[in-house]
Amino acid sequence: QRNYSVTLLPGDGIGPEVVSVAKDVLTLAGGHEGIDFRFSEMPIGGAAIDAAGVPLPDETLAYSKESDAVLLGAIGGYKWDGNAKPLKPETGLLQLRAGLSVFANLRPASVLPQLVDSSTLKKEVAEGVDLMVVRELTGGIYFGEPRGFRTNDNGEDVGFNTEVYSTFEIDRIARMAFEVARKRQSRLCSVDKANVLEVSMLWRKRITAIASEYPDVQLSHMYVDNAAMQLVRNPRQFDTIVTNNIFGDILSDEASMITGSIGMLPSASVSESGPGLFEPIHGSAPDIAGQDKANPLATVLSAAMLLRYGLGEEHAARRIEAAVIETLNKGFRTGDIHSPGMMLVGCKKMGEEVLKS
Amino acid sequence: QRNYSVTLLPGDGIGPEVVSVAKDVLTLAGGHEGIDFRFSEMPIGGAAIDAAGVPLPDETLAYSKESDAVLLGAIGGYKWDGNAKPLKPETGLLQLRAGLSVFANLRPASVLPQLVDSSTLKKEVAEGVDLMVVRELTGGIYFGEPRGFRTNDNGEDVGFNTEVYSTFEIDRIARMAFEVARKRQSRLCSVDKANVLEVSMLWRKRITAIASEYPDVQLSHMYVDNAAMQLVRNPRQFDTIVTNNIFGDILSDEASMITGSIGMLPSASVSESGPGLFEPIHGSAPDIAGQDKANPLATVLSAAMLLRYGLGEEHAARRIEAAVIETLNKGFRTGDIHSPGMMLVGCKKMGEEVLKS
Ligand SMILES: CC(C)[C@H](C(=O)O)[C@@H](O)C(=O)O
Ligand SMILES: CC(C)[C@H](C(=O)O)[C@@H](O)C(=O)O
Repeated sequence: QRNYSVTLLPGDGIGPEVVSVAKDVLTLAGGHEGIDFRFSEMPIGGAAIDAAGVPLPDETLAYSKESDAVLLGAIGGYKWDGNAKPLKPETGLLQLRAGLSVFANLRPASVLPQLVDSSTLKKEVAEGVDLMVVRELTGGIYFGEPRGFRTNDNGEDVGFNTEVYSTFEIDRIARMAFEVARKRQSRLCSVDKANVLEVSMLWRKRITAIASEYPDVQLSHMYVDNAAMQLVRNPRQFDTIVTNNIFGDILSDEASMITGSIGMLPSASVSESGPGLFEPIHGSAPDIAGQDKANPLATVLSAAMLLRYGLGEEHAARRIEAAVIETLNKGFRTGDIHSPGMMLVGCKKMGEEVLKS
Repeated sequence: QRNYSVTLLPGDGIGPEVVSVAKDVLTLAGGHEGIDFRFSEMPIGGAAIDAAGVPLPDETLAYSKESDAVLLGAIGGYKWDGNAKPLKPETGLLQLRAGLSVFANLRPASVLPQLVDSSTLKKEVAEGVDLMVVRELTGGIYFGEPRGFRTNDNGEDVGFNTEVYSTFEIDRIARMAFEVARKRQSRLCSVDKANVLEVSMLWRKRITAIASEYPDVQLSHMYVDNAAMQLVRNPRQFDTIVTNNIFGDILSDEASMITGSIGMLPSASVSESGPGLFEPIHGSAPDIAGQDKANPLATVLSAAMLLRYGLGEEHAARRIEAAVIETLNKGFRTGDIHSPGMMLVGCKKMGEEVLKS
């Protein structure tokens, strides 16, 4: 019997509904595999602002750090949109990423044969897409100093942020990306803007240097504007992509939408040691919160990533992924991925069907 | 008889071929409209590096500044890829933009009914797309100081760039964008990352402030990651988009590719006064350079933008645009936009057909 502690952070909007489903799925899959989970539920985001006055209470971070893995639902909502930076739900998420030092964000985007019609891309372009974006998550312009506001010589307000990377930061995300690529098709595309930015020149230089440790992985480089085009033109050309925090934010969302089913996509944020953070890529969808309409599968698949990347429980991860595929094959669909002839179900019912599969 | 001086900057790769076609089209359209052009041809990019040792010779900038408008082909090529920053072809383009103070880059992306099949998006998603990205072009992380390399306390190399905007810079691009939107469908979407970046918070604040001068234009805000998704999900939702230099670089290229015909897309870079810079959005395509295979229509349509936005010659601009449409309607296609049943032609022949139309 293996024992793991998992911190659940339901967050805002549809977060609680989808996390509740994923918790049940984890428990059942664990039962079959001889795994016992101890769950603690803690507030984050808007819920934490309302309950504790801050988007990431100390206790939430402390519990998260001490557990074996963290499963997050979603954060944010109209209610807190006007808040100043320290009281934004997003700030809680950024603090959690930094607090856990999860510098590598793994974001798969694959088009399942069952859902190829959900994509806005032509079938012959979308089918077979299976890529992974490895996004640097605790550096770059998100965290770079100096940042803030000042007055310039003309008396005007100025806002500024710093895009900055050290060799240490680039080397560790590079190694992580090469490792990920090696377990996939061994093709890694590094995305930067080295024709304009000095920070990208260092990025390219270090990625190229680390490549010598991975002679079996084929490395290429692409400018970020071209990458944004190529994802639309021919997404199948990509296997693994590695890029910085802000380019990764943009490109991984673009790649997600190319699959047409962002309600299906999980993510993993990991460090070299310590607990990983697992979350669906979709937002808190306040407009459908509490209506049992949300698609829980992205969170269920995030639980599978938690097992694989967070706990090394590959077998249990595959069990969950197989159950999701079977549920889709049976024809169950939430509203976001529904198509004619399929059975429209809510969040809870979808969860029950995964548990049966 | 109106007289204008136009500086032609053919540049590298297919640049000379496509500029040559556009020059002939300008001359003919001018003749019909009582406009006389004086052309001067100057080197830029790789061609200038080879000829004069720098990517933007002083003479090229001086001529450009003194003329009424500048028409650029394309820059760059494998030959100069390994060059250090000051000797990169791209550096010449950035210096030209800064030298002309063309702070507003207008990038239309529209799907012509004749070419809707070129898009990788489903027909029902692509058809009717007609959007304009207004990208800030002389500020932000492209030009922000401090920038460069240093060694940190751990003795590691660090690369850094500064994303910075002043109220002056934001206000002028905002006004330009509102003016552009007003001549279109009066809907402006400002794209930023105000949930994370201080510079984006100032951006959003100023855009919102300037909006009060344009009560007839409907303003919305969107985060850049969401914008990258929405362009794939439903590009028809956008009319005019305004954003910073780097987000504009990425999103305008993504939007271009959504049309499926980047060989058709022009751009205009303008200031409040002084000559504008007009160029196709495609690159120098070194692999097909000199083979008479390039599509000259993006440069021809850039010449139309030159007439409209650079010289205020709306009538002549429309004449050229109508000729391009007629040529497409007759079934002429270069390789990049060719489809079964259409007549495959080269760069020169396409130019001749536009001249006949
Ligand atoms: C909510 C926001 C701060 C966050 C980010 O930009 O990293 C989100 O877009 C994401 O990608 O997880
Ligand atoms: C060539 C490069 C410097 C340039 C840019 O990034 O601005 C190009 O991508 C563009 O969009 O015109």
